[in-house]
Amino acid sequence: MTTTTILSDLGTELIIPICAVIGITFSLFQWYLVSQVKLSPEKPGADGKNGYTEALIEEEEGVNDHTVVQKCAEIQNAISEGATSFLFTEYQYVGVFMVIFAILIFVFLGSVEGFSTSSQVCTYDTTKMCKPALMTAVFSTVSFLLGAITSVVSGFLGMKIATYANARTTLEARKGVSKAFIVAFRSGAVMGFLLAANGLLVLYITINLFKIYYGEDWEGLFESITGYGLGGSSMALFGRVGGGIYTKAADVGADLVGKVERNIPEDDPRNPAVIADNVGDNVGDIAGMGSDLFGSYAESSCAALVVASISSFGNTHDFTSMMYPLIVSSVGILVCLITTLFATDFFEVKTVKQIEPSLKNQLIISTILMTIGIAIVSWIALPSSFTIFNFGAQKVVKNWQLFLCVGVGLWAGLIIGFVTEYFTSNAYSPVQDVADSCRTGAATNVIFGLALGYKSCIIPIFAIAISIFVSFSFAAMYGVAVAALGMLSTIATGLAIDAYGPISDNAGGIAEMAGMSHRIRERTDALDAAGNTTAAIGKGFAIGSAALVSLALFGAFVSRAEITTVDVLTPKVFIGLLVGAMLPYWFSAMTMKSVGKAALKMVEEVRRQFNTIPGLMEGTAKPDYATCVKISTDASIKEMIPPGALVMLTPLIVGIFFGVETLSGVLAGSLVSGVQIAISASNTGGAWDNAKKYIEAGVSEHARSLGPKGSDAHKAAVIGDTVGDPLKDTSGPSLNILIKLMAVESLVFAPFFATHGGLLFKLF
Amino acid sequence: MTTTTILSDLGTELIIPICAVIGITFSLFQWYLVSQVKLSPEKPGADGKNGYTEALIEEEEGVNDHTVVQKCAEIQNAISEGATSFLFTEYQYVGVFMVIFAILIFVFLGSVEGFSTSSQVCTYDTTKMCKPALMTAVFSTVSFLLGAITSVVSGFLGMKIATYANARTTLEARKGVSKAFIVAFRSGAVMGFLLAANGLLVLYITINLFKIYYGEDWEGLFESITGYGLGGSSMALFGRVGGGIYTKAADVGADLVGKVERNIPEDDPRNPAVIADNVGDNVGDIAGMGSDLFGSYAESSCAALVVASISSFGNTHDFTSMMYPLIVSSVGILVCLITTLFATDFFEVKTVKQIEPSLKNQLIISTILMTIGIAIVSWIALPSSFTIFNFGAQKVVKNWQLFLCVGVGLWAGLIIGFVTEYFTSNAYSPVQDVADSCRTGAATNVIFGLALGYKSCIIPIFAIAISIFVSFSFAAMYGVAVAALGMLSTIATGLAIDAYGPISDNAGGIAEMAGMSHRIRERTDALDAAGNTTAAIGKGFAIGSAALVSLALFGAFVSRAEITTVDVLTPKVFIGLLVGAMLPYWFSAMTMKSVGKAALKMVEEVRRQFNTIPGLMEGTAKPDYATCVKISTDASIKEMIPPGALVMLTPLIVGIFFGVETLSGVLAGSLVSGVQIAISASNTGGAWDNAKKYIEAGVSEHARSLGPKGSDAHKAAVIGDTVGDPLKDTSGPSLNILIKLMAVESLVFAPFFATHGGLLFKLF
Repeated sequence: MTTTTILSDLGTELIIPICAVIGITFSLFQWYLVSQVKLSPEKPGADGKNGYTEALIEEEEGVNDHTVVQKCAEIQNAISEGATSFLFTEYQYVGVFMVIFAILIFVFLGSVEGFSTSSQVCTYDTTKMCKPALMTAVFSTVSFLLGAITSVVSGFLGMKIATYANARTTLEARKGVSKAFIVAFRSGAVMGFLLAANGLLVLYITINLFKIYYGEDWEGLFESITGYGLGGSSMALFGRVGGGIYTKAADVGADLVGKVERNIPEDDPRNPAVIADNVGDNVGDIAGMGSDLFGSYAESSCAALVVASISSFGNTHDFTSMMYPLIVSSVGILVCLITTLFATDFFEVKTVKQIEPSLKNQLIISTILMTIGIAIVSWIALPSSFTIFNFGAQKVVKNWQLFLCVGVGLWAGLIIGFVTEYFTSNAYSPVQDVADSCRTGAATNVIFGLALGYKSCIIPIFAIAISIFVSFSFAAMYGVAVAALGMLSTIATGLAIDAYGPISDNAGGIAEMAGMSHRIRERTDALDAAGNTTAAIGKGFAIGSAALVSLALFGAFVSRAEITTVDVLTPKVFIGLLVGAMLPYWFSAMTMKSVGKAALKMVEEVRRQFNTIPGLMEGTAKPDYATCVKISTDASIKEMIPPGALVMLTPLIVGIFFGVETLSGVLAGSLVSGVQIAISASNTGGAWDNAKKYIEAGVSEHARSLGPKGSDAHKAAVIGDTVGDPLKDTSGPSLNILIKLMAVESLVFAPFFATHGGLLFKLF
Repeated sequence: MTTTTILSDLGTELIIPICAVIGITFSLFQWYLVSQVKLSPEKPGADGKNGYTEALIEEEEGVNDHTVVQKCAEIQNAISEGATSFLFTEYQYVGVFMVIFAILIFVFLGSVEGFSTSSQVCTYDTTKMCKPALMTAVFSTVSFLLGAITSVVSGFLGMKIATYANARTTLEARKGVSKAFIVAFRSGAVMGFLLAANGLLVLYITINLFKIYYGEDWEGLFESITGYGLGGSSMALFGRVGGGIYTKAADVGADLVGKVERNIPEDDPRNPAVIADNVGDNVGDIAGMGSDLFGSYAESSCAALVVASISSFGNTHDFTSMMYPLIVSSVGILVCLITTLFATDFFEVKTVKQIEPSLKNQLIISTILMTIGIAIVSWIALPSSFTIFNFGAQKVVKNWQLFLCVGVGLWAGLIIGFVTEYFTSNAYSPVQDVADSCRTGAATNVIFGLALGYKSCIIPIFAIAISIFVSFSFAAMYGVAVAALGMLSTIATGLAIDAYGPISDNAGGIAEMAGMSHRIRERTDALDAAGNTTAAIGKGFAIGSAALVSLALFGAFVSRAEITTVDVLTPKVFIGLLVGAMLPYWFSAMTMKSVGKAALKMVEEVRRQFNTIPGLMEGTAKPDYATCVKISTDASIKEMIPPGALVMLTPLIVGIFFGVETLSGVLAGSLVSGVQIAISASNTGGAWDNAKKYIEAGVSEHARSLGPKGSDAHKAAVIGDTVGDPLKDTSGPSLNILIKLMAVESLVFAPFFATHGGLLFKLF
């Protein structure tokens, strides 16, 4: 068994920050390119740097109409202000939570050894002395706060980028679909690279700083680092839930009155809820999703690190092998950088039809390149053979086996992506069948849509199961953690194509509101339709990786809680499993009802404005956008607390009163049940949305027989789309966070639960 | 430790058949009372035996109009013929399956010891010799066939009773709500008592006959008896799925054209799908549900018996204690008999408002009486202390602990019943909120309804979890099995109030079709509304007991497969858990899409008839009922095969290729995930149905503000109701069977899987 790696420790110390800096630089460069599209009419963007002059603009009417540009800038401003103001309000509440929870972490973990300041025997290697539990409590609290702040910053920056890019995309759409695509995609890349590189860099710096104190005590070091994942994920929960309720309350409210009752188009400026709707896209789909994927990334890294610290890497203090997860992510940034060039420089999107393939190619190219990348990293950064901690025993693993673990996760992600595309894109029969069922009304549409969502679980679940089986068999929980990292290794590309969706959606909204011509709207609609599918693919990735991450965290928790088996055939575990499987339903019930209630309020307000403001319908009077923004803000802040509390309190209550066995059951149950609801909810919603778009676009004989807009079949499709809104943008994606967050929270509190937990059973 | 029981073996040999015979006699007596309502106008039912004379009939018009009676008789005949013909068609297909599966059982189990005819060492008590595996294969096959036939007969008899009673209920409704209620309820009781007593008697006789061969080899005896449960449940699967697709295709199809497009009332004789719809109620809700609950009952008895046979009861051949589960069921019949008298004789339902309380009281009375019954049985039929097999070890149990196990199941059933009522009856706020959400259209109605279903899982899951924890902790899997029996001990009453629903529904249909006055229809509607809630309660019982039964069967399977732990922290088990949790989604996707497809065909046919038959809308021409009946029949026969195959083949494939550990995971996963979907689907559907009825009935200020029939809110409510149809009557209730059936099938094939299973892992 050789224990040396080809890559030296110094090489590792260099490669990670260098890759992170490259990522950030690339992101800033993309931003610079986007910023070349000028929003101020005084200085037209004809400086030639972006490769075009005003003369190239195809749009005949209004091309040099500076009022259009001004209008776009105004609308963008309104959206950006609304989003910023909402996020600040949200962060105030979340900040209070952060402080309370930080205190909780400190008190609970500090009490494990009764706040003693003396060193103690290590948990795993009992021949060594480790740092006091009190200091681990301090460092866990610090890393929790760091994770939380990084997550908040990620979400906020994402939102800023998106609201910076949306009007620019609209303006570029005047010059053709190609230019608009590049701006939207580049903006997505800004977000993707910034988040991926930033997350990596902060984690890397934190580890190095903590190492100054911990020195050789890697057990304590990486145990305290898990707080980073908890911080990232808990912010993501509020971001997803709060943002999700915000966006869907506005969207559902706007659609129900605007499209269904008043028969005005989507994003019509006469609709009072239109600004709230566009703000929602940015705070929900952008900020929420950014925080979510950052959380996944942070958690899978932490899960891998904590298991590695008690494996042979940790025992022999082999720094390069220990940092294997971070090196994989570093190489991922480089791979994604090259991949991005394929979309923006090597090939050009010339027609509408090329948009979806171009985005799909991003996934394929990044996966193929990354496979090579993983092979190299596994070869240079790992000893050819080493041991991994496996629930009390050490398991021998070869470096090629670990390559397979990461690879299986990576490719499972691609499969999930393609299956998601098949079930949610209106180019294939599943969505067309759903559209066809609108012929007999909304009821059959809903029935077919629900059935489609259920069916779409099958292959992703098999893909996840195979990944788990391979990685688990080869390298126990470490294998599962690196499989999750494999799926997330192309996160920069994933985020780029995911963020592209809401940016295009907003661009369309701005075009409509600025009164630009039908041709512009058609172009942004084409961008948006592809964005719906990529959004679903992004959600597929988020769910798949969440399943793997949660299992890895669950395994790390079980190891830390010193349980060696989680036997379903014990009452404590089984009731945990059953109740755990119920939690996603409870959570979904809360979030869906919240959206429903908030939407009802929004509907009433929009109706009130249409009924009481004279000239609104005729376009002579301006609606009161601010009240609608306020309704969404208030509802989401108020309604995000109960589901948040459910997720955050469950592990604490179960751990304290029922102990670690029952908690293990709860984690396993919520994982296996939640992942199904999350997949089906997100695909059902995506399918309904695209079924509606299929009828609207009317590109085939079949589609035209169902349409046009306003036909009975189209009305039925709109109802399905509305039902799908909270499913795909609120409850579905929040469920990833539910399963991840409960697992990481259990892991962080594991020392406390193992020492003081299970009060109820101790009493009897 | 005393091992003697107060009740002698002779006493046991007498008490079980006597109780069964009492049940059957009581059932026949109720049938006699129902038959006193004469359907032939020539001999008016004025013989005074039913306690009334023609003069008492309140109905002014048409009271002695013999054509009305004749019409009712004709319609009843048509429904009965349609149902009989469908069931015979179904049984032909199912018969083929039965034969194939019987051969499979024989071959698989016979091959365990290579078809050797010599005796072998017992599995558990290795000091003794047991009968050859080949003979267990033979007897398992025989008991499988017996269970299947009993199940088929149960379903068929139920259907016959229901179609015998429906027109009689309509005719009695002329004399007031009280008379109609008694007929409907008595008919339900006929079915309830016949099924409960019949199931018990056949099982008892089979055990005694098998004992002649097996003698002292109780291990083999009760192992082969488990085939009875498998037979019962596999027929129930086809009954539920086939019947469910039949009834909902007809119902959805009839509603979509009749109510939504043509604006004609429900059950209007002009609607071509109306006969198919009424046939559906009888083959789906009656025959399917009868088979389902019979299956649950047979399986929980088998699960308890097989665990008991390897516990101290079995080792010491203590017949009375061994028969404890059957004695509990016997006493249950007596308790239900007394309970029934409370509804039919001790108190009288005089007004519409008393219907629901009267049915609810049935549940409360039977639960209270049964608690006393269980206490007595536990005292006289059990030794004060004994041991129970607990995954390789023997666990000491006191008789009072077993009383608590049965009791906790019984009371959990009551709690589930009440929670279900709260969430599905329009007397409470959840359904009223859903109705209120119709104000803003179908989309919010669907969102609120789905959220309600999810939310309604919470308390039932806690109730089931507590039952499991208590019974599991006290008496391992035997405790869980008897807890399930406790929940099912009042099955006769449960079935009675459950069957009451579709009978009332049909009675209303017949009244409408026979052109009886509005007052009659109002009365049957009132009966029907209460029936909707009791149907939901019945489904709650079916799901709750299915969860307990499955766990008990799962435990028995694990014991038989000689596994001692099912550790979630092994890849084999975990992937099983994940894939198992997905199966209910796959299954639901199939059944819902089947209903959707069949409904589309039905819609087209109904539209075709309205468009092509002149005078149909005006009531001058008769529609072609037969074509609609044929569409439902063909669709359900064709569509029941794929979901049936999924459920029946999964345990076989997993067991053979992946082995018993993965199969354990699959069973646990499908159990914890399936029970949630089943509860939420059935309650969501029930709530939508009653939200619609709430708006239609308009009994409160709030309800009237949403109505009347035909208003926008009402249209939205109809869409919700239609979406709920396949959820509550096809996919939801079939899921119980999915989880039970996979468990019992695994148990029956356990010896084979343990010997020859896991091929794939053996290869690598």
